[in-house]
Amino acid sequence: MADGAGGKASRRLVEGTIVPLLGDAWKGTLADSAVLDIGPGRLAMTTDAFVVRPLRFPGGSIGELAVNGTVNDLAMAGAGPVALVAALVIEEGTAVETVEAELRALGEAAGRAGVPVVGGDTKVVEHGKGDGLYVSTTGLGRVLEGVALGPDRVREGDRVLLSGPIGDHGITILLARGEVDLEADLRSDSRPVWPLVRPLLEEDPGAVRWLRDPTRGGVASALNELARDRGLAVVLEEAAIPVREPVRGACELLGLDPLHVANEGQFLAVVAPGAADRLLDRLRSIPGGEGAAIVGTLREGPARAVLAETPYGGTRIVDLLEGDPLPRIC
Amino acid sequence: MADGAGGKASRRLVEGTIVPLLGDAWKGTLADSAVLDIGPGRLAMTTDAFVVRPLRFPGGSIGELAVNGTVNDLAMAGAGPVALVAALVIEEGTAVETVEAELRALGEAAGRAGVPVVGGDTKVVEHGKGDGLYVSTTGLGRVLEGVALGPDRVREGDRVLLSGPIGDHGITILLARGEVDLEADLRSDSRPVWPLVRPLLEEDPGAVRWLRDPTRGGVASALNELARDRGLAVVLEEAAIPVREPVRGACELLGLDPLHVANEGQFLAVVAPGAADRLLDRLRSIPGGEGAAIVGTLREGPARAVLAETPYGGTRIVDLLEGDPLPRIC
Repeated sequence: MADGAGGKASRRLVEGTIVPLLGDAWKGTLADSAVLDIGPGRLAMTTDAFVVRPLRFPGGSIGELAVNGTVNDLAMAGAGPVALVAALVIEEGTAVETVEAELRALGEAAGRAGVPVVGGDTKVVEHGKGDGLYVSTTGLGRVLEGVALGPDRVREGDRVLLSGPIGDHGITILLARGEVDLEADLRSDSRPVWPLVRPLLEEDPGAVRWLRDPTRGGVASALNELARDRGLAVVLEEAAIPVREPVRGACELLGLDPLHVANEGQFLAVVAPGAADRLLDRLRSIPGGEGAAIVGTLREGPARAVLAETPYGGTRIVDLLEGDPLPRIC
Repeated sequence: MADGAGGKASRRLVEGTIVPLLGDAWKGTLADSAVLDIGPGRLAMTTDAFVVRPLRFPGGSIGELAVNGTVNDLAMAGAGPVALVAALVIEEGTAVETVEAELRALGEAAGRAGVPVVGGDTKVVEHGKGDGLYVSTTGLGRVLEGVALGPDRVREGDRVLLSGPIGDHGITILLARGEVDLEADLRSDSRPVWPLVRPLLEEDPGAVRWLRDPTRGGVASALNELARDRGLAVVLEEAAIPVREPVRGACELLGLDPLHVANEGQFLAVVAPGAADRLLDRLRSIPGGEGAAIVGTLREGPARAVLAETPYGGTRIVDLLEGDPLPRIC
């Protein structure tokens, strides 16, 4: 508890442990605020609390997820990341090695995403008042010029682009908890998506109408929000949606719809119909974008609904998630 | 738990409860990021996790503190707040009324501080994995033109200005926990200090060298950091330091030094000696600044130390806090 009290132990923790572990990603001072000189243009700002359980899982960990989740939210506004801050809530008694590993993961992920960590805060709570470590990250980004995104930009006939296979993150977390008797060769898809998004926006900023990363609630929730906000229907071609075999198998066994399962390294883009094939080719040409696909179309009706056309000619309604199959997946 | 899963319940929580409770302070959209057009100039950015216990106390609450603490960190960089985001970690089973009251407090505090809330996030953790509510807030501010603050700007002979009586917040929290058998007519000093700081900076930006809000670790920690960073001594005139009678009494009974007790609505300013009296007068002329005082001077030695000259002609060393008399005071 002394580490969080703002005195000598806090100072030792911050200067002796946290800052060195963040490595080259640390560009802050130890003042109350970071001062940034980032030039003109529109800014994007986003915040997220990360409470994923377990803290480490195949393909990622809370420190890494906290960076990727935040820079991905910036990317969905058409913004490249320019600064990141992190606030840690550490449960008393958490192994020092655990906290150190996550700070290192946070610093490395920030390095990979190309975003400086400019500030942070650490609080310690009593044993039994937390769960090891919670991380809240806030990102600041610069919006690319000429980008205009939002549900109001979406038109009937627009196509829905998906960057790659879905459900990897949610199913990985579920299996990592060991609560279901199932094994699969699967890793979280956690990664920064800006290197995939940016070339699309630079290729044809006007043709990209709406972006969303399908995290909690999955693709179904993201598209239902779009359908509702825009008053159109999203019609998915179920056979075109990329799902890895282990995810499909686990979902069948557990009675889950992959469209409801969380992702941490994929994004949905609604694009102008005439540009869809070209943008798909562009996305597939980028490392990490090989699995991208056109998965659906915006239709006039049924308004505010998401439908999936099955390979057998049927149609089903893809609803928002009701209840909670997978708590604390990010 | 369903409220945090990203599906229907989450959407209901955010649209039906959170946004209306924030009131006029809410200026966000429900997209992944807020997009801001804040014009040219240097920006300040700061983040803090708030884990104060109890959630409500005389003079404030966690939602209100989360705003004031964050805008005050911006003020310490010479920045007026332009945007705020908040991430909530709610413990399963926390009364809806509790969360609602804090969202309302957060919105009202943002309104008083004149800062729009542009985004947020909500996570729910299982019962026993939190403590009601934790709030992480991040603020973005615009630095006033001509302001240059930092330990490197501090010179020997500079004076230390304190905005008002110290220790109110820490002692209020301690008493609110009911763990010590003591009563006092006392409230937290939680408030935004920018209305006090801004006129000083506008009066004479060059004369204000360093600003710090003495939160965790109190005035002693803040000045020890300055002494260490700058390699000078800070010599306090103990009799000049404003401390309310209930705080002084509680500290004597509990063996605490008021200089180690946290504040949430005061600030320290190191100012040029020739401007000190004028800036003190200016500060005292502002509502809420009546209790300000000049409390110390920067001296060449003993380097990196904070000393207090007692009314009886003695001198004592004011060290950084060792150990933790008051955990989770913010």
